[in-house]
Amino acid sequence: MKVSQDAYGQQLLAQYNSQMPTAEIIERDDGFLDIGSDAGLYFREYKQWSSVERRAVKLARGRVLDIGCGAGRHSLYLQQISFDVTGIDISPGAIKVCKLRGLRKAIVRPVTDVDKFKHDSFDTVILFGNNFGLFGSPKAAHLILKKLYRITSPNARIIAGTLNPYKTSDPDHLEYHKLNKRRGTMPGQIRMRVRYRRATGAWFDYLFVSPQEMEDIFKDTDWRIERFIAPEAANYFAVIGKKSL
Amino acid sequence: MKVSQDAYGQQLLAQYNSQMPTAEIIERDDGFLDIGSDAGLYFREYKQWSSVERRAVKLARGRVLDIGCGAGRHSLYLQQISFDVTGIDISPGAIKVCKLRGLRKAIVRPVTDVDKFKHDSFDTVILFGNNFGLFGSPKAAHLILKKLYRITSPNARIIAGTLNPYKTSDPDHLEYHKLNKRRGTMPGQIRMRVRYRRATGAWFDYLFVSPQEMEDIFKDTDWRIERFIAPEAANYFAVIGKKSL
Repeated sequence: MKVSQDAYGQQLLAQYNSQMPTAEIIERDDGFLDIGSDAGLYFREYKQWSSVERRAVKLARGRVLDIGCGAGRHSLYLQQISFDVTGIDISPGAIKVCKLRGLRKAIVRPVTDVDKFKHDSFDTVILFGNNFGLFGSPKAAHLILKKLYRITSPNARIIAGTLNPYKTSDPDHLEYHKLNKRRGTMPGQIRMRVRYRRATGAWFDYLFVSPQEMEDIFKDTDWRIERFIAPEAANYFAVIGKKSL
Repeated sequence: MKVSQDAYGQQLLAQYNSQMPTAEIIERDDGFLDIGSDAGLYFREYKQWSSVERRAVKLARGRVLDIGCGAGRHSLYLQQISFDVTGIDISPGAIKVCKLRGLRKAIVRPVTDVDKFKHDSFDTVILFGNNFGLFGSPKAAHLILKKLYRITSPNARIIAGTLNPYKTSDPDHLEYHKLNKRRGTMPGQIRMRVRYRRATGAWFDYLFVSPQEMEDIFKDTDWRIERFIAPEAANYFAVIGKKSL
């Protein structure tokens, strides 16, 4: 990734340096452009998280891998309460911010490269901030889940948050679901990129799923959903364990 | 203007309908994309305006023309305190919002068409919210100022706000000034368009000037700057009268 394309990381760096909360701008591949997060979201402290997120983070145990760690809000919290936590993010700017903020283990690495970690490196994998989405598509999810299986301990768990894409009445979003059906992708599979001032990030797929769709994705994997947290809400979590147990 | 291109108006309408303040996204012709206004700016009540704006509005007298009236925040205030005020905006969505909010005289009309008003129709012309920028360029300003001369009374005044483009240390903005110098336009002449969800507005020029640059623009016109309000500030106003008096 060219640094000039790291729109996401540039924004986090600018926020870190200026101490001024800003919002991110997201462009979807149907031309839809909007503000994608509340200003300062990526720097929120534990007490500012949603109650669902606070419930989910309590389920972390052992060595934690934080995938798509952003500015490190979840990793830093876990590190502070003495967890051995490693944050990874595809964005060099994000990882730079994590290091500046004191995260000891922060690595520039896309989720597709998690197999660069050794066998049995982690006991918990967290995908917070809707980062179940980083699986991208069911097919990509299957591949990544195999890699995660190898780098985690036998009784490892994944704690993954997502957004239920059907909890909307927004005509633009509903039309996008239809577009996806026509092109054979999941309705909530969002092809998007981050824009920040003169920087434009690379296109990537971000997957929003309903609880039922998430169940379907895990069917043919070595993982199973143990339980959901707030499955009736727009933003919910799944706690996922290894099937072999 | 196709309604689908009225990104600005669509955003104002959505804000009006949802009662949820949002920010606008501005794209500049060098690819710079950013949030261009505070959320809810266009709906702010008098007491939320800047002190400079409150000082400037006090200078209105007689029949008022509000150019680029947006959601009508200035026109509605003046109407409420019994002024005869007409708001014009190029955006059909903006004018719809003005009407929904109770502005009695609200017309879809670009600043370049002010000569559609009759001779001696107004005593004050306001260009608030940096709308001196709507003059676009010195050349366009001269043309519009001639039209404004005709549609206003002998002792009419223009009250115009702008942003001093040199009150910045932002590298992206400073580089844009250089780009403009290379292409022979004023440093603060911003070619931009509004983006809102799937709508993209038309490109237009918006002119930011220093007090000295504004003086220069008025040199060869029938108008003269009577005084500035807060000329040392980034956002300042000029009060402009007819030279013939």
